[in-house]
Amino acid sequence: MANYRLDVAYDGTRYSGWERKSNGVTIEEKLEDVLARMTGREAKVIGAGRTDAGVHALSMTASVRLETELSPQQIRDYMNRYLPEDIRVNGVSLAGDRFHARYNAKGKTYRYTCYVGETKPLFDRKYVTVLERRPDAERMRRAAALLTGTRDYRSFCTNAQKKKSTVRTVERIEIREEGDRLFIDFTGSGFLTNMVRIMTGTLLEVGYGEREPEEMTGILEALDRSAAGPTAPAKGLCLMSVDY
Amino acid sequence: MANYRLDVAYDGTRYSGWERKSNGVTIEEKLEDVLARMTGREAKVIGAGRTDAGVHALSMTASVRLETELSPQQIRDYMNRYLPEDIRVNGVSLAGDRFHARYNAKGKTYRYTCYVGETKPLFDRKYVTVLERRPDAERMRRAAALLTGTRDYRSFCTNAQKKKSTVRTVERIEIREEGDRLFIDFTGSGFLTNMVRIMTGTLLEVGYGEREPEEMTGILEALDRSAAGPTAPAKGLCLMSVDY
Repeated sequence: MANYRLDVAYDGTRYSGWERKSNGVTIEEKLEDVLARMTGREAKVIGAGRTDAGVHALSMTASVRLETELSPQQIRDYMNRYLPEDIRVNGVSLAGDRFHARYNAKGKTYRYTCYVGETKPLFDRKYVTVLERRPDAERMRRAAALLTGTRDYRSFCTNAQKKKSTVRTVERIEIREEGDRLFIDFTGSGFLTNMVRIMTGTLLEVGYGEREPEEMTGILEALDRSAAGPTAPAKGLCLMSVDY
Repeated sequence: MANYRLDVAYDGTRYSGWERKSNGVTIEEKLEDVLARMTGREAKVIGAGRTDAGVHALSMTASVRLETELSPQQIRDYMNRYLPEDIRVNGVSLAGDRFHARYNAKGKTYRYTCYVGETKPLFDRKYVTVLERRPDAERMRRAAALLTGTRDYRSFCTNAQKKKSTVRTVERIEIREEGDRLFIDFTGSGFLTNMVRIMTGTLLEVGYGEREPEEMTGILEALDRSAAGPTAPAKGLCLMSVDY
């Protein structure tokens, strides 16, 4: 029995998120099913985090214990042969016995992509959120600066009552415009349920002039979901990387 | 009644190509249906060329005569509101009365995209052709050089018997590797049915060492489809631009 580290990418469009659940098909389930088929035993895949339904990943890290004589590369190739085309394993490597994809994760980077063009996006239409008009990126940057740090992010969490702690560290929120696209990159120790999407929804309200950047401090202090803005659509969000 | 020029992009995955036909849904038909809805009259859209089923376009030019009081921008917005999400109108402009998207086209550029990575593509999986192994790009370049010029391309055409002439000018074929992708760009006066895909299939055979670059001359001289290689899959092909 050895411990493996998986680097997984997926187009979340068709899935009910990462975590296995009774209703809806999930990424975790697809990975576990393929590994069970490969080894003949049940497999428990541990993801670095849980992405919401419809959220994508360029690089999600997972760990799993397997009893197999296949090499890491053979495991990768087997998985890619049997996984659906919207889930890819980019790498498999042997990990130390104590490696745990969730507990050992030091940080994550998410990217939220907005399309602000005059028409509509085409080839990447499933990976961007279309905005009706271009928000003011400079206002968003001022608001974003107030949202970083080690804080209680309860106002930016959907199911705070289920959490032991809603304190997290957000190291950086970077807003960048590139042609018809506006990217918001979030790097932090970890993110609460829907946290990136609620921060995005709130920052967009600031960008549209519906809120002032300075209001962010009050929203954090409220410790109440209703103080923040709406949850931005899942399709624009992508987990870019997990750091260990 | 004024003459308009349309700049259209589409994801060809779901379509039976550009040209209207009795069986299968086409891009031309979708555009004409929306314009007929807009003006209350039948519309005849003229494309710069006809792309095959499954082929994409970043920028296809079309012309159409319309009786409407809408401005070009309003026409564009109307079309984008009612077109399916895999067809986009990036621009509409008034064109001179004599402008004809097909007859006036001076040249076209197509790109064929191959994926040569160790795993499989994810987010652009519908726009690339996966190769089992990496072909030798330098051999392909030597072969490509022999395929340019003003020549009778009958060997690279599926339905030569239907053509008045199978002589075309191919100005450039450029092969470029970029990470996990290999691009083949074709620029020419015009291309015969399946011509870019047959050239690609033949160049890939050279890249794999199954043919010598020098054989290209003989293939051209044969004036016979069976002398060339296979037709590469449609999904890797994209019409990049039309020049006037």
